[in-house]
Amino acid sequence: MAKVTVHRKAHFNAAHRLYKREWSDAQNTTVFGKCANPHYHGHNYELIVAVKGEIDAETGFVIDMKVLKDLIKDEIEEKLDHKNLNEEVEEFKTLNPTAENIAVVIWNILRVKIEVKLELTVTLYETPRNFVVYNGE
Amino acid sequence: MAKVTVHRKAHFNAAHRLYKREWSDAQNTTVFGKCANPHYHGHNYELIVAVKGEIDAETGFVIDMKVLKDLIKDEIEEKLDHKNLNEEVEEFKTLNPTAENIAVVIWNILRVKIEVKLELTVTLYETPRNFVVYNGE
Amino acid sequence: MAKVTVHRKAHFNAAHRLYKREWSDAQNTTVFGKCANPHYHGHNYELIVAVKGEIDAETGFVIDMKVLKDLIKDEIEEKLDHKNLNEEVEEFKTLNPTAENIAVVIWNILRVKIEVKLELTVTLYETPRNFVVYNGE
Amino acid sequence: MAKVTVHRKAHFNAAHRLYKREWSDAQNTTVFGKCANPHYHGHNYELIVAVKGEIDAETGFVIDMKVLKDLIKDEIEEKLDHKNLNEEVEEFKTLNPTAENIAVVIWNILRVKIEVKLELTVTLYETPRNFVVYNGE
Amino acid sequence: MAKVTVHRKAHFNAAHRLYKREWSDAQNTTVFGKCANPHYHGHNYELIVAVKGEIDAETGFVIDMKVLKDLIKDEIEEKLDHKNLNEEVEEFKTLNPTAENIAVVIWNILRVKIEVKLELTVTLYETPRNFVVYNGE
Amino acid sequence: MAKVTVHRKAHFNAAHRLYKREWSDAQNTTVFGKCANPHYHGHNYELIVAVKGEIDAETGFVIDMKVLKDLIKDEIEEKLDHKNLNEEVEEFKTLNPTAENIAVVIWNILRVKIEVKLELTVTLYETPRNFVVYNGE
Repeated sequence: MAKVTVHRKAHFNAAHRLYKREWSDAQNTTVFGKCANPHYHGHNYELIVAVKGEIDAETGFVIDMKVLKDLIKDEIEEKLDHKNLNEEVEEFKTLNPTAENIAVVIWNILRVKIEVKLELTVTLYETPRNFVVYNGE
Repeated sequence: MAKVTVHRKAHFNAAHRLYKREWSDAQNTTVFGKCANPHYHGHNYELIVAVKGEIDAETGFVIDMKVLKDLIKDEIEEKLDHKNLNEEVEEFKTLNPTAENIAVVIWNILRVKIEVKLELTVTLYETPRNFVVYNGE
Repeated sequence: MAKVTVHRKAHFNAAHRLYKREWSDAQNTTVFGKCANPHYHGHNYELIVAVKGEIDAETGFVIDMKVLKDLIKDEIEEKLDHKNLNEEVEEFKTLNPTAENIAVVIWNILRVKIEVKLELTVTLYETPRNFVVYNGE
Repeated sequence: MAKVTVHRKAHFNAAHRLYKREWSDAQNTTVFGKCANPHYHGHNYELIVAVKGEIDAETGFVIDMKVLKDLIKDEIEEKLDHKNLNEEVEEFKTLNPTAENIAVVIWNILRVKIEVKLELTVTLYETPRNFVVYNGE
Repeated sequence: MAKVTVHRKAHFNAAHRLYKREWSDAQNTTVFGKCANPHYHGHNYELIVAVKGEIDAETGFVIDMKVLKDLIKDEIEEKLDHKNLNEEVEEFKTLNPTAENIAVVIWNILRVKIEVKLELTVTLYETPRNFVVYNGE
Repeated sequence: MAKVTVHRKAHFNAAHRLYKREWSDAQNTTVFGKCANPHYHGHNYELIVAVKGEIDAETGFVIDMKVLKDLIKDEIEEKLDHKNLNEEVEEFKTLNPTAENIAVVIWNILRVKIEVKLELTVTLYETPRNFVVYNGE
């Protein structure tokens, strides 16, 4: 059967700051600029989850979009939406919540919830001008 | 010569429903939800056709965009625009018109009209939030 | 207090055809072109509901966006999403479901659900290239 | 001379929370939901500043876009970008930073910097799905 | 009958430069910056034409979108697309082709082609970040 | 470490014409249509630069977005923005400035400025409907 990649968009709004706990404020500002602000800033993260696999001959689906949408809602939006990533999300207590790291965290969460035979790619827009892609490589 | 992928956007508006003829209404609703509505619903499909190949040293083109635009118009828009996919498009009389299957049908139509040495990828947005990609794999 | 207009986006997918019951097929095709197709076609309608009023000094809201979002969901999306407008929506049994008329129907439904002191405007995108605005004038 | 409205887009990223200092946590959560989270969340605010006036016969400009762009940068982006609105922006120490109130604050700041004969309107997107408009009314 | 505003998007690509013939190069650069470059630069202009009027009870249209689309094509796109505005468009031989002035020129051309009872507004995007609106005021 | 692709958007406005110096005007018009206009036309080019590599364990970055943004500004925007590509940009004095060729030129400029271990891809929108991708292949 033909292999198709299906994509679903979702979004969450969160606060974060970029810094390394072990560094001084000055060092954090040098490396992370305004993003190191200890009072936090925030973003509307736009997320695209892509799943690649063979079309099911019965349904014509690679994956049921409704199932994918609910999975993203339950596993990602519930966890990250309207949260302070540094303070309230376990993974970022020791990991800097850069767009790169957030994409990897999202991918790891979804990977175990999606059938192994399906390939998974996560695209995360931090702003309309900055975005990252991770596919488990 | 350098290999570049050129993309052209197009669009068509169509009605469809998702269902399997052999299944009962109840079964179709279980699997396809609101998309199984026997009265049909519809979408503005946005299509991106990508063609990859070497730049022609004379023209600086991989493929003449005007030619690609006209090809999409003649082969895809004429066939699908303002149509009921299930009722009026031959391919979907026995094939469920999911985004996945529509992308494959479009790819198959265009593949034979584009030089073999050029790689072809079709991206189809069913809504601004759902889209699929097919490249013949 | 300052008067601000707040806007909320929503969307629904529907099938429709444009025609006048009293006219012949030929006449309908002359006036409505491909949109008269008796097998229907469809659109992803994107809806923007705008509400204008004074900011509440307590909350800082003109209207609670969550309330507005739920109102649009209950009154408009439930009624129109994944429907055949001509066949399944009472208002369009005798009214041609042009973008203009759909916007007026939506406005009329929402008007009685929103406080009189708030001004209401409905913007409806039939496609990314065609849209209409109605404010009760 | 003809009167034209010119618009310039800009953007800033900020953290905020919605709450009323005098209310209990429970009351704040009832009214503001997830937006009351004491750890903050955040947004990519997209801003459109519109200035209406007569075209200058010499230049063909209503206002020099470069001047408008720099004004927005100096007065708004410098003040709000990568900030915690509640903690770091004077105006929001006693004012709830709803989209409505932020738009009014921005309008008040710009109004005194733009010639009186020019009309001013501020559009502020809190997310791609929620936005507000204020024109001093 | 209800009054609705219908909008149609179109686009054209053109070269231009901003300058005043009577001024020195230095003076033009002072006022118009990089836009004064004598070798020209260019834009993808995106145009939205809005027409407001009563819905026709027979058709459900304010104006036939197909008619509006063709009017824009014949009167505006044919005239401006892939042109050098300063060198090849009569109106701009003596008028600086700022976004403001282009919007007024487009409005004047369309105004005489659209029924007097319909209100006309022209929105012109010079870039995705700069746009102007003119309604004949 | 995980390999992530980070993307940064930028833009420049330029004039150009497509033609081959050795060909007659008639031949150029046959091949390049309206794009051969000797008076030039222009575009708002939107550029996406993608850089793929391992996340740095210290910073959580693949590449500092601020550095990437400044690199694009210094090397590409300064060179191409508000320019006539044919007349003012060395590379296009003998090379037809098609979207394909512009993407290759941009890639070549950036490639030597970005660490060899990082993969580079350039996406260039000539219009919102036409775009090309080049990754050095």
